[in-house]
Amino acid sequence: MDYASSGVDIDLEGAAVASLIGSLQRSTRKPGTPGAPVDLPGGFGGLIEFGNHLLAMATDGVGSKLQIATAVKQWASVGIDCMAMNVNDLLCVGAEPIAFVDYIAVPKPDPEVHAAVGASLAKACELANVTLAGGETASLPGIVTELDLSGTALGFLAKDDAITGETLQAGDVLIGLPSSGIHSNGFSLVRNIIKHSGLGYEDACPFNPEFAGREIPRWTEGNPTVAEVLLTPTRIYCDPVVGLLHHLKAESGTVHDVHGIAHITGGGLSNLLRLHDSLGWHIDSPMPIPPEFVWLQQNGNVTDLEMHRTFNMGMGMVLAVSKKASEDILNFLGAKNSGAQIIGHVHDDGHKVTHVNSQVMFQHY
Amino acid sequence: MDYASSGVDIDLEGAAVASLIGSLQRSTRKPGTPGAPVDLPGGFGGLIEFGNHLLAMATDGVGSKLQIATAVKQWASVGIDCMAMNVNDLLCVGAEPIAFVDYIAVPKPDPEVHAAVGASLAKACELANVTLAGGETASLPGIVTELDLSGTALGFLAKDDAITGETLQAGDVLIGLPSSGIHSNGFSLVRNIIKHSGLGYEDACPFNPEFAGREIPRWTEGNPTVAEVLLTPTRIYCDPVVGLLHHLKAESGTVHDVHGIAHITGGGLSNLLRLHDSLGWHIDSPMPIPPEFVWLQQNGNVTDLEMHRTFNMGMGMVLAVSKKASEDILNFLGAKNSGAQIIGHVHDDGHKVTHVNSQVMFQHY
Repeated sequence: MDYASSGVDIDLEGAAVASLIGSLQRSTRKPGTPGAPVDLPGGFGGLIEFGNHLLAMATDGVGSKLQIATAVKQWASVGIDCMAMNVNDLLCVGAEPIAFVDYIAVPKPDPEVHAAVGASLAKACELANVTLAGGETASLPGIVTELDLSGTALGFLAKDDAITGETLQAGDVLIGLPSSGIHSNGFSLVRNIIKHSGLGYEDACPFNPEFAGREIPRWTEGNPTVAEVLLTPTRIYCDPVVGLLHHLKAESGTVHDVHGIAHITGGGLSNLLRLHDSLGWHIDSPMPIPPEFVWLQQNGNVTDLEMHRTFNMGMGMVLAVSKKASEDILNFLGAKNSGAQIIGHVHDDGHKVTHVNSQVMFQHY
Repeated sequence: MDYASSGVDIDLEGAAVASLIGSLQRSTRKPGTPGAPVDLPGGFGGLIEFGNHLLAMATDGVGSKLQIATAVKQWASVGIDCMAMNVNDLLCVGAEPIAFVDYIAVPKPDPEVHAAVGASLAKACELANVTLAGGETASLPGIVTELDLSGTALGFLAKDDAITGETLQAGDVLIGLPSSGIHSNGFSLVRNIIKHSGLGYEDACPFNPEFAGREIPRWTEGNPTVAEVLLTPTRIYCDPVVGLLHHLKAESGTVHDVHGIAHITGGGLSNLLRLHDSLGWHIDSPMPIPPEFVWLQQNGNVTDLEMHRTFNMGMGMVLAVSKKASEDILNFLGAKNSGAQIIGHVHDDGHKVTHVNSQVMFQHY
């Protein structure tokens, strides 16, 4: 199986987004005034000017992972997923997330759902250290058949502290941060594989889901269920990454030993190619792979390449850092996020991602 | 007919929102640091600290007005509706909107829809003078059956310039700004009345839709259709209101001759009660009523009270201003927004909204 055959037409999505972007004009807000757009290398689009700072906005939803939560009526993790998808994107440009708003669409308001989502968002705000600055609940029985949840995060950074990938160079060290599992991408493929396997979401998990550094949410007794494993919340990387940027600024006056940061979402390792136009990436020490990926690959008969293009495969975030600062940075990150490790390096041997597994190679995202 | 019988259970929505809010804890961000929440009188929840400024976020969607756009495959106005619902909310606290992100959920990407929505958002950014700072398009065939569109706007204000209603006093003058029609609220009732009337959205409009100061979007020749009238985009009030705040600041060094601003959305005139705990509001010169409201009331057999609790009835925004500055402010607003007029005054004769039509009286929102 692959992602495209699971109901997601990537080309059609690309064409749709292209026609949307093609319709957008330049901003009417003039450079040097609050709100003027800032174009940075690397294409992160959400930055605007604000005095001596830049503000960044990110908006995203939980996607079809929600359908599993709704199927088993357990929404305790979806607010964390929603937060993570947004704040982790902000971190990639060096922004510190400070506030979040949620948008909930339901066919009909249900106090049980809202209480669970609210508790999950409250937990997420604590984990990401952001203020919940508002939210909207829409009842749209003619448009949605079950819960949709999305949100928008706001972050800021000093004008000179943007991390864009522009300063990347051959020899930079790649440090990976462990994921907690599938996070919130690739769920069309996940749901397709589960469906074909004949397993139910409330059946016992057919493999041992234990994995270092993560805790599976539990609402049943006995062995974990499939849903409990799949609904493990997406890891929020604010604590290690914002902490690191503050640490570097305090120690050396600059954050610029960090040359690039990538959030590994849909697209998997191919996301790295967005950070630079010509440099390449080699992964020689990939991170441990959570057991659900092994099971999904076997039961879905998915290629190694497709797995690494669809899933994070155990690594939720990658930082490319200067060789000289890499030991200090690894120590700092490791103390915050057990399991951080050096996974490879940047090279100037072509714009591609290569991997110790030779099946895994990307030249396009 | 009324709003509740049209499929919207307001009590259930209230209970759902209450259980969500009950789950939210205080922010972890400390007062005096970026992102710390600011509690202002009036209950506008979206304000956070940022140095000498406050930042404000607002999030909202277009709601079931989208279903009419989708039914007739005309999305040129929905981006403007989405922008308006958000930036008009920001204006109420005295914030200047500077950036916007959109969230689009569709069952399947469709380049025609995305191009139309994109063009509409681009137009909306121009009208609101904001930068489109990002967006997300989600394909969720298991969750949405047709287009859902929501967004988040970001605005800012100087710390001392928040408009909260706190300084309201008896004798303040109420200035209304004309709406362009139904805007984006009450569409469950609108759709219910149209359905019972037997009219189709593409039928000729059964009344003369001409109304001073607004232009109906046209995609057919000949007489306007029902859909063309209903899909008139929500008016964006950034130009008059931000312009006014800049004007007052430049002339008198303060914005505080404006004591309160209310965006008239679902809840109609009862929204005014949110601005102050004890003062009252009398409308003695209501604004002209667009003809669709007259037709809807007759054909739905809706009471005057229900009409004014569900719709804006021709007035999209109300400013409560000091008597001494009211002439200057009316002149300024009138030059920006033809049709601005004095509609009534604030009094200290009880926490209620009264109206020259004695049927229209609100003591609760």
